[in-house]
Amino acid sequence: LFNNAPGPAYAAAEAVLAPCELVIEAVAEQCVGVKLQVACFERLGAPGWAALHRAARAARERELLVIADAKRGDIAVTAAAYAQAFFGGTSTPFGPVEGLGADALTVNPLLGEDSMAPLAEAARGLGSGLFVLVRTTNPGAGDVQELELADGLSVSERLAELVAQLGVVGDSGLSDIGAVVGATAPERMETLRERMPHASFLIPGVGAQGGAVEALGPAFSPGPAGGLIAVSRGIVSAYERRGGDPAAAARSEAESLRRRAWSLVP
Amino acid sequence: LFNNAPGPAYAAAEAVLAPCELVIEAVAEQCVGVKLQVACFERLGAPGWAALHRAARAARERELLVIADAKRGDIAVTAAAYAQAFFGGTSTPFGPVEGLGADALTVNPLLGEDSMAPLAEAARGLGSGLFVLVRTTNPGAGDVQELELADGLSVSERLAELVAQLGVVGDSGLSDIGAVVGATAPERMETLRERMPHASFLIPGVGAQGGAVEALGPAFSPGPAGGLIAVSRGIVSAYERRGGDPAAAARSEAESLRRRAWSLVP
Repeated sequence: LFNNAPGPAYAAAEAVLAPCELVIEAVAEQCVGVKLQVACFERLGAPGWAALHRAARAARERELLVIADAKRGDIAVTAAAYAQAFFGGTSTPFGPVEGLGADALTVNPLLGEDSMAPLAEAARGLGSGLFVLVRTTNPGAGDVQELELADGLSVSERLAELVAQLGVVGDSGLSDIGAVVGATAPERMETLRERMPHASFLIPGVGAQGGAVEALGPAFSPGPAGGLIAVSRGIVSAYERRGGDPAAAARSEAESLRRRAWSLVP
Repeated sequence: LFNNAPGPAYAAAEAVLAPCELVIEAVAEQCVGVKLQVACFERLGAPGWAALHRAARAARERELLVIADAKRGDIAVTAAAYAQAFFGGTSTPFGPVEGLGADALTVNPLLGEDSMAPLAEAARGLGSGLFVLVRTTNPGAGDVQELELADGLSVSERLAELVAQLGVVGDSGLSDIGAVVGATAPERMETLRERMPHASFLIPGVGAQGGAVEALGPAFSPGPAGGLIAVSRGIVSAYERRGGDPAAAARSEAESLRRRAWSLVP
């Protein structure tokens, strides 16, 4: 299957993995988890997938949660295959094949409840979870998510209801099904929180995409674990603004963001 | 990056590739393309991605179109990375890394127009295209796609309008942006066709999922290339119903479906 001569994809995958490991090491004490953007590995083919597994392992070794940002969503039989890929793995006649072992996966809900159920079940059985896209950070998010429904809700609000139905609330008071709610639309956060009182919010969009930590109060109403602020470019590229050693700059930026986020917790 | 000892994932990926190549060879003269379900490869990690590339190559060698059924959708910067993965590849300091070289990719439109634009541009530059999810085949499709909007349209109908806006119509009269419209909701096909007069419809759901070829007339109103009927389990597992050699059964089933589909073309 493989071309054994390590070509450009192999070299590029090693070059992608190295800074991942550096940043994971640098920020491990400031962060609770690492969100791996699967597309950036996937474009390097098979070596990219090997690097993705290695980056996840590096995060686990530092006791960080692994969030696979893959935004998968498909009919049930295919969703079950994605669950094997990102969570517990696949039984084969040749022996078990490991999955990515993610603690959480981002999921696209356009195909409805039965497309998410196999992913939710697989996650639940392993103490993992899902983050379902409810309100994304991009300028075009409104094209579909902000459409007004006949009953007066927005599509995002209806998605929030689906998330609340799908989740199982544990002793912590938090559901095992969370939601992606971008920091770029803080005015939506309060109404979405009302419809998902127990969901953890995974919150991208702080920093490079323009969102401010200080506007994210409602995310934390269930407590400190109610919000997970996901900052990627802001931390990885911190040295471009702060100067100095990239790892030290990443650590300082993560520390500063952590302090600002904790100040929001009621 | 790789464990060089070929383990279960490697053996399983080879075992998955073998029947793919067999079926591609068997049906090549009855079909115009092959829809590869990316999840089934992805769950085998790096060897699975190598097998996916090999299956695509086998299809190209038989002059079949390669449709990557990956249902990707993300913010623009990430969509650009998915475009590299599935279409033309990635430039790296170590040399170019090949993409899958797909002729088309299935795309999830929940993140709106700017999430699809980088994929559309990459596809267009290579003479490839997209199939955007508009109405899927699964029982839960209605949870989101059939919601009624304040203006009386369904979400699917609004998605159809986005598809029509995004596409560029060529000399053939067909747009380079098509739509996934499942055969399990034939009553929707006519209204969706009205909103997407130039789109090719990729039509899953015939056979194993209960849809009938004979109900798909409106898909073909722009001509024979207006509809691509995607049958996977129905062809691959044809020997379970027809008996005999699996490859011969797959070919017979594909031939029968082809004849019935052509009878619908105006």
